[in-house]
Amino acid sequence: MSKVPANLKVCIFDVFGTVVDWRGSLIADLPALGRKYGIETDWTSFADDWRGLYQPQMGRVRKGELPWTRIDDLHKEAFEMLLQKRGLKHPGEEGAWEFTHLWHKLRPWPDSVEGIGMMKKKYVVATLSNGNVALLINMAKNGGIPWDHCFSGETFHHYKPDPEAYLGVVDSMYLKPEQVMLVAAHNNDLAAAQKCGLSTGFVLRPGEHGPGQTRDLKAEGDWNAVGTSMIDLAKKLGC
Amino acid sequence: MSKVPANLKVCIFDVFGTVVDWRGSLIADLPALGRKYGIETDWTSFADDWRGLYQPQMGRVRKGELPWTRIDDLHKEAFEMLLQKRGLKHPGEEGAWEFTHLWHKLRPWPDSVEGIGMMKKKYVVATLSNGNVALLINMAKNGGIPWDHCFSGETFHHYKPDPEAYLGVVDSMYLKPEQVMLVAAHNNDLAAAQKCGLSTGFVLRPGEHGPGQTRDLKAEGDWNAVGTSMIDLAKKLGC
Repeated sequence: MSKVPANLKVCIFDVFGTVVDWRGSLIADLPALGRKYGIETDWTSFADDWRGLYQPQMGRVRKGELPWTRIDDLHKEAFEMLLQKRGLKHPGEEGAWEFTHLWHKLRPWPDSVEGIGMMKKKYVVATLSNGNVALLINMAKNGGIPWDHCFSGETFHHYKPDPEAYLGVVDSMYLKPEQVMLVAAHNNDLAAAQKCGLSTGFVLRPGEHGPGQTRDLKAEGDWNAVGTSMIDLAKKLGC
Repeated sequence: MSKVPANLKVCIFDVFGTVVDWRGSLIADLPALGRKYGIETDWTSFADDWRGLYQPQMGRVRKGELPWTRIDDLHKEAFEMLLQKRGLKHPGEEGAWEFTHLWHKLRPWPDSVEGIGMMKKKYVVATLSNGNVALLINMAKNGGIPWDHCFSGETFHHYKPDPEAYLGVVDSMYLKPEQVMLVAAHNNDLAAAQKCGLSTGFVLRPGEHGPGQTRDLKAEGDWNAVGTSMIDLAKKLGC
């Protein structure tokens, strides 16, 4: 049975879905921007389709088809691909960036700020997100998330689940892999971190993908800790 | 006459000397570690000599004589050079790291935490230090410095005053250079940032080098703002 290592020093967090509710935030915010720019569409499916292009877009970088490219730029390009696919008008360069920057304003799940604040008293708390550094800093300012630091795929020029991202944090902090715990709502992210020797903490987010969610409804690996919320996970970590 | 740009978004801070009192902290902490390892010397001049090797050590990286090397490793090597020069015994690998990690525990000047907290309400506040990321995170935890993020020479694999360090922050934040202000107690650091187009804020630290300080006793350039303390500078920035 897994447990929390006594020498744990740093908790790094996946962000999209784990700390913030990307889907609920986009569905809430897209319609007003659509009205501003005179674009009409089904914004709920638009949000899901936009997120659907996230892995394929990063895949182009991970496979070397694209040089290192930040998520902001990949998000903007995906947004424009969706406009074209749906026959919607382009809102202009500034408009496209205004839509893209909705990802900087995603709101934390109700328990995230309190849970991370609890962990911050005992551990270094930092992101390890594929979101770029500006996005993560702006999001934290907007949402009051008390990070000590923002590690990003941008820091290491590698997107998770590339091992370079997880091991980059370990190396930068001069620690052993097990002294760093990845906290995530996604079993595949945790599996990749565990393969690198990191500790793992699973948070249940059964509403991330809306009412029809079929994946990540339970822990599917031997994770060091499992929480039903960020606050519950903090308690499991002795905070 | 310089003034603060209305579109300023991010304040990045030099750390050693500007935010923390490296000299006072080292002089306070070295003797106890010396006793622990049975090393006797004049620790005040040792602290000054150790700091004196800081620029030459980084210079080896900046000139390409060394590949990218973090400050922790440069500090440790400089420590060992000084031991040898003074004919002092080596405290062993772990001991040498314990001495080196004193730089992670440098204490903020009395006004730093409050002044940075004031600026944090209006701006993103982050380090831009030649200290490595682990050092900066650990120092902030120890001293209660409320950074939003820690940018470091390590982030860009360039030590200040290389332009890549200042412009790396601008690029990462997707901003114009003038929207980023370097805050420092050192005129040469500010001059290098200004040459890259950044805004500049000078903080007076007349005690950084002890009672005999001869440099950086006044603003020697056309800086956007000048403060007699971090709190005074925050007020000058409208915080």
